Amino acid sequence: MHEFSGLNEECGIFGIWGHPEASELTYMALHSLQHRGQEGAGIVTSSGDYLFGARGMGLLTEALSKEQLESLKPFPHAIGHVRYATTGGSELSNVQPFLFKSHTGDLGLAHNGNLVNAINVRRALEDDGSIFQTTSDSEVFAHLMRRENGTDRKSRIKKVLKQLKGAFAFVIMHEDSLTVALDDHGVRPLMLGKKDGSYCVASETCAFTAIGAEYIRDIEAGELITITDDGIDYDYYTDQTYPNLCSMEYIYFARADSEFRNTSTYRIRKELGRALADEMDVEADIVIGVPDSSLAAAKGFSERVGIPQEQGLLKNRYVGRTFISPGQEARERAVRMKLSPVRDIVEGKRVIVIDDSIVRGTTSRFIVKALKKAGAKEVHMGVSSPPLKNPCYYGIDVSTHAEIIASRKSPDEIRDEIGADSLTYLSVDKMHDVYHQFGSKGQCDACFTGNYPIDIEEAILPQEKDLKQKGV
Amino acid sequence: MHEFSGLNEECGIFGIWGHPEASELTYMALHSLQHRGQEGAGIVTSSGDYLFGARGMGLLTEALSKEQLESLKPFPHAIGHVRYATTGGSELSNVQPFLFKSHTGDLGLAHNGNLVNAINVRRALEDDGSIFQTTSDSEVFAHLMRRENGTDRKSRIKKVLKQLKGAFAFVIMHEDSLTVALDDHGVRPLMLGKKDGSYCVASETCAFTAIGAEYIRDIEAGELITITDDGIDYDYYTDQTYPNLCSMEYIYFARADSEFRNTSTYRIRKELGRALADEMDVEADIVIGVPDSSLAAAKGFSERVGIPQEQGLLKNRYVGRTFISPGQEARERAVRMKLSPVRDIVEGKRVIVIDDSIVRGTTSRFIVKALKKAGAKEVHMGVSSPPLKNPCYYGIDVSTHAEIIASRKSPDEIRDEIGADSLTYLSVDKMHDVYHQFGSKGQCDACFTGNYPIDIEEAILPQEKDLKQKGV
Amino acid sequence: MHEFSGLNEECGIFGIWGHPEASELTYMALHSLQHRGQEGAGIVTSSGDYLFGARGMGLLTEALSKEQLESLKPFPHAIGHVRYATTGGSELSNVQPFLFKSHTGDLGLAHNGNLVNAINVRRALEDDGSIFQTTSDSEVFAHLMRRENGTDRKSRIKKVLKQLKGAFAFVIMHEDSLTVALDDHGVRPLMLGKKDGSYCVASETCAFTAIGAEYIRDIEAGELITITDDGIDYDYYTDQTYPNLCSMEYIYFARADSEFRNTSTYRIRKELGRALADEMDVEADIVIGVPDSSLAAAKGFSERVGIPQEQGLLKNRYVGRTFISPGQEARERAVRMKLSPVRDIVEGKRVIVIDDSIVRGTTSRFIVKALKKAGAKEVHMGVSSPPLKNPCYYGIDVSTHAEIIASRKSPDEIRDEIGADSLTYLSVDKMHDVYHQFGSKGQCDACFTGNYPIDIEEAILPQEKDLKQKGV
Amino acid sequence: MHEFSGLNEECGIFGIWGHPEASELTYMALHSLQHRGQEGAGIVTSSGDYLFGARGMGLLTEALSKEQLESLKPFPHAIGHVRYATTGGSELSNVQPFLFKSHTGDLGLAHNGNLVNAINVRRALEDDGSIFQTTSDSEVFAHLMRRENGTDRKSRIKKVLKQLKGAFAFVIMHEDSLTVALDDHGVRPLMLGKKDGSYCVASETCAFTAIGAEYIRDIEAGELITITDDGIDYDYYTDQTYPNLCSMEYIYFARADSEFRNTSTYRIRKELGRALADEMDVEADIVIGVPDSSLAAAKGFSERVGIPQEQGLLKNRYVGRTFISPGQEARERAVRMKLSPVRDIVEGKRVIVIDDSIVRGTTSRFIVKALKKAGAKEVHMGVSSPPLKNPCYYGIDVSTHAEIIASRKSPDEIRDEIGADSLTYLSVDKMHDVYHQFGSKGQCDACFTGNYPIDIEEAILPQEKDLKQKGV
Repeated sequence: MHEFSGLNEECGIFGIWGHPEASELTYMALHSLQHRGQEGAGIVTSSGDYLFGARGMGLLTEALSKEQLESLKPFPHAIGHVRYATTGGSELSNVQPFLFKSHTGDLGLAHNGNLVNAINVRRALEDDGSIFQTTSDSEVFAHLMRRENGTDRKSRIKKVLKQLKGAFAFVIMHEDSLTVALDDHGVRPLMLGKKDGSYCVASETCAFTAIGAEYIRDIEAGELITITDDGIDYDYYTDQTYPNLCSMEYIYFARADSEFRNTSTYRIRKELGRALADEMDVEADIVIGVPDSSLAAAKGFSERVGIPQEQGLLKNRYVGRTFISPGQEARERAVRMKLSPVRDIVEGKRVIVIDDSIVRGTTSRFIVKALKKAGAKEVHMGVSSPPLKNPCYYGIDVSTHAEIIASRKSPDEIRDEIGADSLTYLSVDKMHDVYHQFGSKGQCDACFTGNYPIDIEEAILPQEKDLKQKGV
Repeated sequence: MHEFSGLNEECGIFGIWGHPEASELTYMALHSLQHRGQEGAGIVTSSGDYLFGARGMGLLTEALSKEQLESLKPFPHAIGHVRYATTGGSELSNVQPFLFKSHTGDLGLAHNGNLVNAINVRRALEDDGSIFQTTSDSEVFAHLMRRENGTDRKSRIKKVLKQLKGAFAFVIMHEDSLTVALDDHGVRPLMLGKKDGSYCVASETCAFTAIGAEYIRDIEAGELITITDDGIDYDYYTDQTYPNLCSMEYIYFARADSEFRNTSTYRIRKELGRALADEMDVEADIVIGVPDSSLAAAKGFSERVGIPQEQGLLKNRYVGRTFISPGQEARERAVRMKLSPVRDIVEGKRVIVIDDSIVRGTTSRFIVKALKKAGAKEVHMGVSSPPLKNPCYYGIDVSTHAEIIASRKSPDEIRDEIGADSLTYLSVDKMHDVYHQFGSKGQCDACFTGNYPIDIEEAILPQEKDLKQKGV
Repeated sequence: MHEFSGLNEECGIFGIWGHPEASELTYMALHSLQHRGQEGAGIVTSSGDYLFGARGMGLLTEALSKEQLESLKPFPHAIGHVRYATTGGSELSNVQPFLFKSHTGDLGLAHNGNLVNAINVRRALEDDGSIFQTTSDSEVFAHLMRRENGTDRKSRIKKVLKQLKGAFAFVIMHEDSLTVALDDHGVRPLMLGKKDGSYCVASETCAFTAIGAEYIRDIEAGELITITDDGIDYDYYTDQTYPNLCSMEYIYFARADSEFRNTSTYRIRKELGRALADEMDVEADIVIGVPDSSLAAAKGFSERVGIPQEQGLLKNRYVGRTFISPGQEARERAVRMKLSPVRDIVEGKRVIVIDDSIVRGTTSRFIVKALKKAGAKEVHMGVSSPPLKNPCYYGIDVSTHAEIIASRKSPDEIRDEIGADSLTYLSVDKMHDVYHQFGSKGQCDACFTGNYPIDIEEAILPQEKDLKQKGV
Repeated sequence: MHEFSGLNEECGIFGIWGHPEASELTYMALHSLQHRGQEGAGIVTSSGDYLFGARGMGLLTEALSKEQLESLKPFPHAIGHVRYATTGGSELSNVQPFLFKSHTGDLGLAHNGNLVNAINVRRALEDDGSIFQTTSDSEVFAHLMRRENGTDRKSRIKKVLKQLKGAFAFVIMHEDSLTVALDDHGVRPLMLGKKDGSYCVASETCAFTAIGAEYIRDIEAGELITITDDGIDYDYYTDQTYPNLCSMEYIYFARADSEFRNTSTYRIRKELGRALADEMDVEADIVIGVPDSSLAAAKGFSERVGIPQEQGLLKNRYVGRTFISPGQEARERAVRMKLSPVRDIVEGKRVIVIDDSIVRGTTSRFIVKALKKAGAKEVHMGVSSPPLKNPCYYGIDVSTHAEIIASRKSPDEIRDEIGADSLTYLSVDKMHDVYHQFGSKGQCDACFTGNYPIDIEEAILPQEKDLKQKGV
């Protein structure tokens, strides 16, 4: 449940090379990736000689004006980015794609992920004379590129990528090429497609659906792909790769129609719901999914246990910013304006509610209370993922341990706090079983288990705090 | 399907008397009624002595600023309105509630519906010296009130209401009273509720859910209710009533959790889906509802025929205004950015798609095409209402006969045009059976049958056109 | 001194009939009249059949967008208005020209002045069934017109004008005529001109200079002029007239290049300065005029006494709204940001400062202090008008007696309060001598003498206060 | 004449150290320097530990919001900048003061002038790994600082300044110091002042008047002043200095009340007018100065020849952007909306018009035409500076030779083109005589003589054009 959960994806990226409607297709693609970031958006295009860009704050439709889009229309190559603010503050200067100008050529950059060694690299560069324009971790790539020597651009990119630690899906625009790179753990998704003969890349395949492109395949951990007028070049920047795709992409970030290795997340979520059903032994009259992200899991659960699924909770389509003053009941009111129970469905019923995750518990508490007020006799909560206990350092915004309820409380304590008659989580093992069933090459489960596949000993957070105190 | 169908409800109204958080509750209630109108919103409050208001263009959250809401907070009585532009142009001066000031007292007015004799009444008033401020049909009420003599306010209101012809749900604010009136056919819905001991009224019960109010009952055709500090006064302005609630409220306007005579539209829609199943004999593998308004009908259909329902179509949550340039494919692109098929659900399947209505046919054509492109073997379209053939003169925006596909084409022709393998509509009789089953006192079906319950010989549309030419 | 004095003119008006660039010329003319009102501006045009208008808040350049101006370009007849808010609050609905629509024809209205019986007329109209849209006194004209019977439009206009009491310069647009009317006292100025063969009217002749029009003559008290495609019709709505042009127009409202009866206000002001010199016996080294409105009077003074005039005070051209927080010194800071002494001109000198009027005394106090700080040995203040003591009820914004320093204090007390070494006002008699010298037919001097030429016993202000309390 | 002349100053700068109202005083000071730049404004403050800033486009009052100013209020040290766009495009990123963040400390930078070797330095830095954020020439300072080694900050600043060629007045903020530097030719003015015991610097002394500060002295060519909590340190970054203050500062850039070496520009301009009188032998009835910048010169001229000065031309105070459509007469209309003759002053007179300079000749042509249309018998033009023939490379925006009328035409040809009866320029020698009379240490006269005191062989303009083609 996006808005309530406290989990926020930071980015969606897209790129296309050599299409007469490049910027327009990028705009449409970003629109379909809007769920991955709502705080800023931008597009950088190449004329073949120079790069031109436009960026703005807010949703795509607010961020870019008609005039800006018109100005980008002539150019046949484009990359785009939608952003949720994690590292770096909420300012226009941090909105991507970044566009760096120099007399030796321009560089456009769109990044999804988080570089865990960004601050140390930045300090070293500053000590060597560099001035940074943004507070974003992504900017270090450009500075390393500027300083890297080498016979050709690809070898310089490889050298730079090897200096980076963390999660990154990069789409890089030079005047004459589009370069795509995925970190050696493949934490964030990146997909390859083709539209009218032109290659394109996107964070999710729903972008391909949106522009009518063909979905070719998932880009692999460590891959480095270069697209030019001469065609596509497949390569790896490293031969040591450890596939660890983020589990949360499956569980709720990705749009339900997006596919991973040719399987929709809708199908994966249904299967997570079925798996949960095998671990949750509760008698009930109806199954309700929390809209929208948990409807698929609820469907799978319902099919598996043979209890009918009903639309017992509705989501208001007009969310936006509202001006309800804080104070007593304020938070509960905010949720109440977004979710409503359907009385004559739940009245007198024993209800199983399926949610894909519990972060703070606020929404779960409201749901149980609202359903009981609407007449539900019993409310059992099923969660189609394991207890979420640990923050993410690879590009997901879960601020601190303190805010995550399962890092402080046991499932039974959580059950009591949210007022449910029972609470069941999916087990880690069952979760992995489902992933393997759909051909996963390896999944990061650090937020559930604490097993961080990429070393985080560089202690990002303390340094960030320091930077913030310095007014950066 | 709101955005695509070409059917637009024009208004949602709300009122509450004597609550310390009157304006804040009105804001929350209007938020839950946002689906009934997105072009403007406003609130008028009473201090007990004078009225104060704020209005603006766009969605509620855009229309009213935090400062405006703060300024209304002290007042214990409030009415509110969300608006879709039908009669009267798209200008701030037409946004309701209207607030009329005079030395004898202020008048606040929120109207849902359409007065079919408004233009003739207006001309007569102008000939007698009145000057109108808006191009809205609703303004005639205020002018008639201003000119009506009578011993007391209620009798004057009755006299005015009797001069009006058409559909109206009025919420009227005077400094010391809240008056609620429903026309003698009861075309538009109006509900009575209670919040913390204070009476409130709303277009739909979802507003009561949103503010935590109790739903008392549906207001009946011809009722005139007056709420003051002394309590509530139930009366009728006429004893000749002909209940004819708009069928489209059941079919898709109302939110699924809103109730009519204690039954949710979710349940009614499910039943319309079941009824359709009895009239549609098609073999298939899966049933898909068009999100969001047709999911309930699809659920009923699925249960009745025993074919599983799947989320084979997804809706992009971030719609808004996009800057896609017109031209070839432009319309289709617009729909494609809003609806996406889930490939691995529909591939190789015989699909039944349930939609609640077909207006122009654009969306249906896209859906069939998209599902087939995603691999569906067969696509059968089921519509959980009869063929929509005629414009509405009672407050729904269906511009002209020419735009309504079923007014020009037979079901078979429509099936061919949208490319479906079969097309089945619900029959008028079956539709009424469902309504009776849930205690309806009488439903308007003019858009299906052409039997207009309120005389429309005054030929509204030609006159409107004339007014528009005059630059009104 | 406009911004500092607390005196604000409320309006400038313009109209032109039958010119291919009517709206563009109106825009340019309003630009030259901007000093008469900065809170709102508008233009209403006629196509010959219908009227079309645009209005907005703020300076002309902010109030009307390029798009709005484009939309008005095709129409050959136009009236315009710039406004300072006096009667009626600061809202768009009060910005003129008003445009009233009805099925019998449209009416455009621009008004400069103030109707002293507006509230009583309004109450009577409301009691007879009218609803008012604005809180402006000007709206009563439209309602009286709407209700007046009569064989032809001109006779109806005459009947309506006879019902009005107060100061009015009206420019009235019907689809087929431009009507211009001046009240029987001729309090506000109104000028007749001709541009490329088309008649035009304006509050001041500077509008004619701005558009390259010929200045024909001043319109007289009681005149009623009608301009149509057939030509111009000169008439009077009354034969009882009492010319009483506002003295303040000469003293500082009108632009220095505007002419009254073929004499520029620059020349009149110079003469007022000369006259002051005859009444002020002070030895000094230099004469300084307060920029910009008092430079002419200082010039006349300087010539008469033979003491050189120097630019010892400068005005910052970039005034606008600034965000200096209130508190200690705040008011003084505001003036200091607008006026600066030139040290090396005033240092060691005995200075005579000429200002055209003193309202609150704030600016005078600052000027004396600043000049002394810059080294002036003595600062003598000469005012080229008599002590301003009484509020205006004919269209000038001088809020209350309490704010007017000369209504509470004698010249000697004022001299002490502002810290000047001496203070001399022009006498009322000398002022009238100057006016007669330039052919004046009669001048209102109520703000100096309290002799109100138009009866104000209807006690406008108490009623206005009442209206404001009612939230109008 | 600012708006019409085609000459635009690019910047005004200010700084203050250790005052409780630092940001507020900076705001007021910038307001008084607004005539030096209207396209952008900003303030950077220091808390003693970190720097915080705010910038925006447009006039000061538009550029900085109340909220932004509030956020800067707590900090006791501030620098500010107003900007007219010369080098670098019109974008927010180019608005100063620049604020550079790094882990070793922040740097704030405000620059008035133009660095003629900026592009070469920039290319070298890019080749060595730097990435530039802006297209401004000023940014090179920060990059050179970042890369400079040295025992202490002052010696590093000295090393950097020595690498720069061109005109620069720098105000540099570090968390613990305010550094002020003027290039070795002292082309742009820079003044030292004191407010309530705190040192401050400004482009002109009018900023000191605006905040009530004491004017200490002019900062000299090559000076390097450092202000900290410990006091003020006076030094020079070079001992080779060649004072060459821009003549145009005297002629029209500086505000008339600003002082240079304790003499107001008002007095200098009067003297330039007197000097012109000695070189212009014309009989006439009145002398008119073009408002506002030429009034002082006209005054001096008038005094010298004994012909009275009159306000025969008026300037509209409400200029702003207007929406007059281009085409026939468009340019002339624009000037006509800004300048008006006063008919009854000039009618029948032989007129001498004094202007401070002629750039394109458009305004002069209009003035002559307008005065003759208003009845002037003869119009003689006197210019209180020599013929302006050459572009400026030190911070003034005079685009190209082609636009400068005197680079193509002789005075006689110009006289004919503007339609004057005679045209007289001040000679270069007389001009320098005046400057020496007021203690000038040396003046740049390159725009008149072509003798550029700072080498411009690096050919700035071609490179700039190239950069612009690259989309920078």
